Amino acid sequence: MTKDGGKKDNKAQQYGVTPQSVDFNDWYNEVVKKADLADNSPVAGAMVMKPYGAALWENIQRWLDDRFKAMDHESLVFPTLIPMGFITKEADHVEGFAPELFTVSKIGTEVLAEPYVMRPTSETIIGHMWSQWLNSYRDLPFLHYQWGSVFRAELRTKAFLRTSEFYWHEGHTAHADEAEARAEVRRLLDLYHEFCRDVLALPVVRGEKTASERFAGAVATYSIEGMMRDGKALQSGTSHYLGQNFSKAFDVKFQTREQKEEYAHTTSWAISSRIIGAIIMTHGDDFGLMMPPRIAPVQVVVIPVGRKDNFDEMVAEGEELAAELRAQGLRVKVDKREGVTNGFKYNDWELKGVPVRIELGPRDLEAGVVVVKNRNSGEKETLSRAEAVAGMPARLAAVHDWLYQRATDFMLSHTVEADDYATFKGKIEEGHWVRAFHCGDADCEKGIKDDTKATTRNVPLDDSEFFGERGEGACVKCGQPGAYGKRVIFGRQY
Amino acid sequence: MTKDGGKKDNKAQQYGVTPQSVDFNDWYNEVVKKADLADNSPVAGAMVMKPYGAALWENIQRWLDDRFKAMDHESLVFPTLIPMGFITKEADHVEGFAPELFTVSKIGTEVLAEPYVMRPTSETIIGHMWSQWLNSYRDLPFLHYQWGSVFRAELRTKAFLRTSEFYWHEGHTAHADEAEARAEVRRLLDLYHEFCRDVLALPVVRGEKTASERFAGAVATYSIEGMMRDGKALQSGTSHYLGQNFSKAFDVKFQTREQKEEYAHTTSWAISSRIIGAIIMTHGDDFGLMMPPRIAPVQVVVIPVGRKDNFDEMVAEGEELAAELRAQGLRVKVDKREGVTNGFKYNDWELKGVPVRIELGPRDLEAGVVVVKNRNSGEKETLSRAEAVAGMPARLAAVHDWLYQRATDFMLSHTVEADDYATFKGKIEEGHWVRAFHCGDADCEKGIKDDTKATTRNVPLDDSEFFGERGEGACVKCGQPGAYGKRVIFGRQY
Repeated sequence: MTKDGGKKDNKAQQYGVTPQSVDFNDWYNEVVKKADLADNSPVAGAMVMKPYGAALWENIQRWLDDRFKAMDHESLVFPTLIPMGFITKEADHVEGFAPELFTVSKIGTEVLAEPYVMRPTSETIIGHMWSQWLNSYRDLPFLHYQWGSVFRAELRTKAFLRTSEFYWHEGHTAHADEAEARAEVRRLLDLYHEFCRDVLALPVVRGEKTASERFAGAVATYSIEGMMRDGKALQSGTSHYLGQNFSKAFDVKFQTREQKEEYAHTTSWAISSRIIGAIIMTHGDDFGLMMPPRIAPVQVVVIPVGRKDNFDEMVAEGEELAAELRAQGLRVKVDKREGVTNGFKYNDWELKGVPVRIELGPRDLEAGVVVVKNRNSGEKETLSRAEAVAGMPARLAAVHDWLYQRATDFMLSHTVEADDYATFKGKIEEGHWVRAFHCGDADCEKGIKDDTKATTRNVPLDDSEFFGERGEGACVKCGQPGAYGKRVIFGRQY
Repeated sequence: MTKDGGKKDNKAQQYGVTPQSVDFNDWYNEVVKKADLADNSPVAGAMVMKPYGAALWENIQRWLDDRFKAMDHESLVFPTLIPMGFITKEADHVEGFAPELFTVSKIGTEVLAEPYVMRPTSETIIGHMWSQWLNSYRDLPFLHYQWGSVFRAELRTKAFLRTSEFYWHEGHTAHADEAEARAEVRRLLDLYHEFCRDVLALPVVRGEKTASERFAGAVATYSIEGMMRDGKALQSGTSHYLGQNFSKAFDVKFQTREQKEEYAHTTSWAISSRIIGAIIMTHGDDFGLMMPPRIAPVQVVVIPVGRKDNFDEMVAEGEELAAELRAQGLRVKVDKREGVTNGFKYNDWELKGVPVRIELGPRDLEAGVVVVKNRNSGEKETLSRAEAVAGMPARLAAVHDWLYQRATDFMLSHTVEADDYATFKGKIEEGHWVRAFHCGDADCEKGIKDDTKATTRNVPLDDSEFFGERGEGACVKCGQPGAYGKRVIFGRQY
């Protein structure tokens, strides 16, 4: 990025996006808006997902939804409102969510005796329904999920990352025993990992959260954590083992095979619209977005390069080329806009991060060739039309691999080990993740957060492909023995 | 239905569903619950959509969504909340919705100076965003829609038909002139009609609503109306021309090609989860649901009929048969439940309305045949396995045609013309639709409603395949000349 940095800065300036390298935060906000992903709304803390962002979210939903169903999960639709009394039934849960609740206290002109809250998450109302549906061990497992939005007040909002209303699926399952419930928690964590790695080209670390970072009401919380291009972490998905906490609060019990009464073991798990923030901040560059090909709303953009007298003809040719690409199952757009320059179009689609661009001009047409450029490369290639079409799936796969490799290299080169607190603090300050031993004490953890704004991201699983190796050492802060048998990841986070 | 009514009553009683012919309302509520479509929730007026109901709704969404996109519409996601002040900007709109609004007046511990409402529909907030996005005629048309839920307080609720939270898409478009906007309104009405006829097997009447039945804030409202098996009407979809009412209230203006400033002409349109109520009440019989094949969550159920010693083998054979059917793109379920009788399974899938059932027993297997039964027929057929598989798409198409024909015959035989008020009242009382001339006066219309509980359903379009013919006559109530150049449909409604 240094080689032609000057040229890029000019281009960025010309196009009106602050380069990533100048101000990451401005870059993010400008790209979100200019790429048509989202806009601010007149509702405090809520965004509008615009067509390009909504299309991305729909692609994410379809892939995950197909997999949930293939794993025998059933979708349901629960109400958006929850009786206030439900939230207070699980002690940790209410403590975690009370400050963020949206309260509905009037319907029409009637003031409600017991208000409702707009769901911050649905464990409570689902628990209530399960208690009515569950009788025997034969009814289990319940493997449920729903798509929708939830509401948690945010003071400082940022599109996709922190909004008062956000979009997600929430999975909720109930099982006859702990082992099966824990296996479900792991199965979903692994699915999220696969989705990030193979579809979004996001390297993520699978691990368990420390106690102070657990979901309100959970026995154990697992997460996938990714590193953004400013070195901060983004928790990209979570999977919780809830033990019998919610089933006891909501009386979710059943008769066992041995005719005894037992409470169900429950789980919940989610990926939210935050993942779009992860895509933006992991893959972007000074020019704008870089969409991972398998989820990109537009995988290939065809730009007919004509003059006034032959533009229609070139558009028709472009449509034909697009049809050949679509016949391979690809998502293709032909840019037919008139009244804007080719240069404007190139910049626009680069900003939107479309993985591959094809330029089609009259002379190319005569010669039977097209000009192909990957979003992640400065090189234009002139290829025979047939070659360009036939090679497109492999080209997109190569872009995916390139993105995953770049992100992995970045994460690895911005993660360090530290065994003394001075080094720890320095590296956090530089925007790194730091791998360190920790005593497991919540107050000690809080001390680190107060000093550095860094929190524990997770304790990587033994079979995590990143940072999972076991080891022993003294707490980087207080010197007590490490609690986890391995280094914990610390970092600042979104 | 009279021929073996006794047998059916016994069966229904045995299975625990009140026959349709005994109490239509009880039948509806019981079928909804026992078929796993929906359940009551602890939130006043809201339902839980259970797996079978959610799967049906997802199939409805996918078909419509694909078509919206093919017609160049773009999906967006707007916030669930709307500032209260927005609702009051369009005078008719606030009058229509004020009594039904859910008000949010507290977030966390903060009491809001201006409360939010949970959207009853999104014209206002979308208008607000459009005013920011729209500059030039070149930006138009805006062809937007979103999937989600909306909130309108209901006192007497009924699953799918009247719930305080209901599910829908809402389409919103903005155009440079009236003609284009009106064409869009018609295009969507025709799409809804096609969807009902060709996918849901529902005969519906396309027409324009009378002034008193218009959407709050619309210049013209069009609807599709279907007849349920108790003779009541169900408005199954609407498409509104909003003129410049909302664009003036929200300042949605643009510069024309001639450099003048002009307000956009807007439309909105919707089909909601009510349509599931229409499917249930148009196609059911004493035994339960009859799912239209093209949208059925399960199109074919395979029931292995074995004894204990060969049940696993029959299940394996059933799975193989299912795989062959799935290879044709069909949605197939194998009922592997143990511990329930075959008779229970037959009843259960009939209640759920699965269009075709295949029984597969050991002797059938040896003979290379299967037993096939359509949901809509009492006859079992023994067919060669290959014949059953190859013939399945045509069989499902025939079930679709049968359902559409039955519903059409019912509607036509329960619709009468009336030219005097005594006959009118009598026929309404008998549960018919009545086609009558009407003066168009809102007070006269209200008088009819007060007398009979019947309202105008719509004024059928000239090219409606039902009831569209033109004619002149005196108002059935007051004797003044008819206002519409044709008979209006009156009926009681859901």
